[in-house]
Amino acid sequence: MLLLLLLLLLPPPPVCASAAARPSFVLVLADDLGFGDLGSYGHPSSATPHLDRLAARGLRFTDFYSSAAVCSPSRAALLTGRFQVRSGIYPGVFDPGSRGGLPLAEVTVAELLKAQGYATAMVGKWHLGFGINGSFLPVHQGFDHFLGVPYSHDQGPCQNLTCFPPDTKCFGTCDQGVVPLPLLWNRTIIQQPVSFPDLVPLYNKFSRDFIADCARRGLPFLLYYASHHTHYPQFASREFAGQTRRGPFGDALAEFDGSVGQLVQALQEHGLENSTLVFFTSDNGPSTLRMARGGSAGHLKCGKGTTYEGGMREPAVAYWPGRIAPGVTHELASTLDILPTLSALAGAALPKVALDGFDLSPLLFGSGKSPRQAVFFYPPSPDPLHGPFAIRLGKYKAHYFTQGSFHSGTTPDQACHGLTPLTPHLPPLLFDLESDPAENYDLLQGEAGPEVLQVLRDITLQKVLLEQRLEFGESQVKKGRDPSLQPCCAPSCSPKPSCCRCSQH
Amino acid sequence: MLLLLLLLLLPPPPVCASAAARPSFVLVLADDLGFGDLGSYGHPSSATPHLDRLAARGLRFTDFYSSAAVCSPSRAALLTGRFQVRSGIYPGVFDPGSRGGLPLAEVTVAELLKAQGYATAMVGKWHLGFGINGSFLPVHQGFDHFLGVPYSHDQGPCQNLTCFPPDTKCFGTCDQGVVPLPLLWNRTIIQQPVSFPDLVPLYNKFSRDFIADCARRGLPFLLYYASHHTHYPQFASREFAGQTRRGPFGDALAEFDGSVGQLVQALQEHGLENSTLVFFTSDNGPSTLRMARGGSAGHLKCGKGTTYEGGMREPAVAYWPGRIAPGVTHELASTLDILPTLSALAGAALPKVALDGFDLSPLLFGSGKSPRQAVFFYPPSPDPLHGPFAIRLGKYKAHYFTQGSFHSGTTPDQACHGLTPLTPHLPPLLFDLESDPAENYDLLQGEAGPEVLQVLRDITLQKVLLEQRLEFGESQVKKGRDPSLQPCCAPSCSPKPSCCRCSQH
Repeated sequence: MLLLLLLLLLPPPPVCASAAARPSFVLVLADDLGFGDLGSYGHPSSATPHLDRLAARGLRFTDFYSSAAVCSPSRAALLTGRFQVRSGIYPGVFDPGSRGGLPLAEVTVAELLKAQGYATAMVGKWHLGFGINGSFLPVHQGFDHFLGVPYSHDQGPCQNLTCFPPDTKCFGTCDQGVVPLPLLWNRTIIQQPVSFPDLVPLYNKFSRDFIADCARRGLPFLLYYASHHTHYPQFASREFAGQTRRGPFGDALAEFDGSVGQLVQALQEHGLENSTLVFFTSDNGPSTLRMARGGSAGHLKCGKGTTYEGGMREPAVAYWPGRIAPGVTHELASTLDILPTLSALAGAALPKVALDGFDLSPLLFGSGKSPRQAVFFYPPSPDPLHGPFAIRLGKYKAHYFTQGSFHSGTTPDQACHGLTPLTPHLPPLLFDLESDPAENYDLLQGEAGPEVLQVLRDITLQKVLLEQRLEFGESQVKKGRDPSLQPCCAPSCSPKPSCCRCSQH
Repeated sequence: MLLLLLLLLLPPPPVCASAAARPSFVLVLADDLGFGDLGSYGHPSSATPHLDRLAARGLRFTDFYSSAAVCSPSRAALLTGRFQVRSGIYPGVFDPGSRGGLPLAEVTVAELLKAQGYATAMVGKWHLGFGINGSFLPVHQGFDHFLGVPYSHDQGPCQNLTCFPPDTKCFGTCDQGVVPLPLLWNRTIIQQPVSFPDLVPLYNKFSRDFIADCARRGLPFLLYYASHHTHYPQFASREFAGQTRRGPFGDALAEFDGSVGQLVQALQEHGLENSTLVFFTSDNGPSTLRMARGGSAGHLKCGKGTTYEGGMREPAVAYWPGRIAPGVTHELASTLDILPTLSALAGAALPKVALDGFDLSPLLFGSGKSPRQAVFFYPPSPDPLHGPFAIRLGKYKAHYFTQGSFHSGTTPDQACHGLTPLTPHLPPLLFDLESDPAENYDLLQGEAGPEVLQVLRDITLQKVLLEQRLEFGESQVKKGRDPSLQPCCAPSCSPKPSCCRCSQH
């Protein structure tokens, strides 16, 4: 309650020039949600009525990709329109106390839109660095407002969340020796540890207020709603806990779905539904190892952490009543395309840097195909020597390296996590993803016809061309950790991390 | 053309008492189509607009089961509302020349409705025996009309069908030394071998004509449309061949989908859409062994031939505009429930035999839940000593025996076909199908709480009660084969089977 009051009393954001004719954007990102986790993507027991409604009334993608199989690099690519290796977001993800972050020199979609007079806000999980005194936080990357957490909620001592196996508290599976997860308002810690049962309602109120405020001011806006649902360990507020057929994962998913419903309802209430593009997707595939009862890649192979389809092909919907016709598209698209697309819709010039995305407007509005012909699959720990592990060109995908997949002696969930040995493939494995989306039948096993050999040459050319033009930025993750950089609500308290607990600010 | 003329010139069926107030029924059965094969069930590259439209405007089932994991027993259960072992349809399926068939004493849904004045017709694949001079054919089981084939189209020397691998003709993968597949009109062979590219258009014309005829006469009707799509080997007529993203399987599926579109269109044209229940499902899961590029069980484990979910959980839609509200149901239902449901809707008394199905009307019309609480999974070769391999009760499923699944040394498609060793499980494997539809996490591994133990007791009670009341009928399949019973268009020709070829009757 006090928190809500606090939020309400904060001064309104600085207002730039009004530009009501331009569309607003709500960018909804799920966390570790698999290709097969929504009812509209075939899950038999999920309850996702709001997302399914968006899918039915919007453009539903069957071939939409994130740019990485784990969190931090995927989010970097989403916000910058650039391969994550360019900005140095590798290997792996940021930890509490990481020295690095998304370099401030990178131009995010928020910065781009803010410069055009958009109001910008981010809610939820950032995971692109904290830095010294929060120097890497969203407010330094173009977001006027930020309410959320700096990294994943298993990156800290666990709280009383429902975990696997059911009814077990998740102590022991989360990182020890680090500070409890803080809730941040811009750069200020307003709660530590986060009270999970209250978190999503708070996010939703913040989001609705932001939308209402922009509506009142006639401002176009960008709202980046990055939920921590359905990342392990699962949790849900009272309204959703224990309410679904699918257990803790289902509850978390239902709460996420409910949030999407609230966002759309807020747009409707303020008459903004026809002037707002809502775009939903997930940061990477389902975690198939430790959150074993978690997400599902559905028809696709493996999940998070791998460069199989299950690791990076995501559910995705573009929803804009009156502008985007309902339907299903099999065209290729990527989170890398978000920035160029939003930039085009807002009438903004593209940043003068190397971009890896395309403007999807022709596809969204039905006047053309996707300009994207290829998808590049970098592993969580990319090495310039390896290049991309896999490349999709049209309907074909070649794997030059794999990590994970079915081998003798492994169970499916072991095998599909990216912990099994790195295996080079020369010639690459080659799959036709349209007839074989599960990547089971290598076209180069047996006699390969001339068409297939030409495909292989074309993909290899794509690989060489990419590697020629792609520069790896200095690794931000390799800068390592400094425990003193962990966000603490009582910076001078001792001993850390246990003293970093402030139930109310 | 000659064939079409022939069909048109045949006399109209005998007409029983008109009963226009009762609904008509179109029962559409796919062949080896998996739970994940339709766009509306999450397949990323299938093109199934007509079925998806039915799914969107009808009641789509997520937990609908066939009664067997292979063809003949599944169809026997569908038509009789009784476990296939009661009628002796085990082990496996009928062959060309099989002595046995579905016993004529069994009461089929066609017989039941015919006795109520319904016009009845069957189109497509029968696979419940041929007998002496066709004594087991549909016309002896309540169908006024039959246009179709007596068994699967791989049960004979292969014709020029597109097979796996692509562009390979399927010689060598079909049964040799048996007669070519005949096309039957009631009991008469009107073509042998069947001309596959012409077959589905012929079926569709027959079906449209039947619907038109019933409409003209004001007769309620049952049309049982049992396609051989998408059984291996795949084929499609000129309109569909090579037209889809998913290859030969996709073409066959698209042709099937197009047929569904034609059936619904015929209903609309004759003003019957609001007085007809269209029910669609499949006979069993996808064949994951030899038609490796074939169907997909989507989120579910394994496929045809196994008692895992992929073998028997099927896509299913009940479509009846104005009567059945659009939606998705997670309630349990089975092909065994078709006869009792249609019987209730037609106002017919149930046959005085042991039935294993339930009237689903309360579920269809939104006034209640499914009366079905349990599903019993008999393997393709059931043995009274083994009892059912698996039982689902509510959301829980116990496996007492498995055949197939992931083991070291097997590839996924080998492992998931029912050829891997029979393995008993004591205690059974126990899965929560709502949180774990892929049957990956045995609840009895680790510490089982009292709720789980009670579930186990409840399921075991169901098993014992079923086995007490279930009588295995004399096996019709074990009666074996007599080559002279193979249908031949020139019965006295020699040498058989090669002389059984009549391009036009």
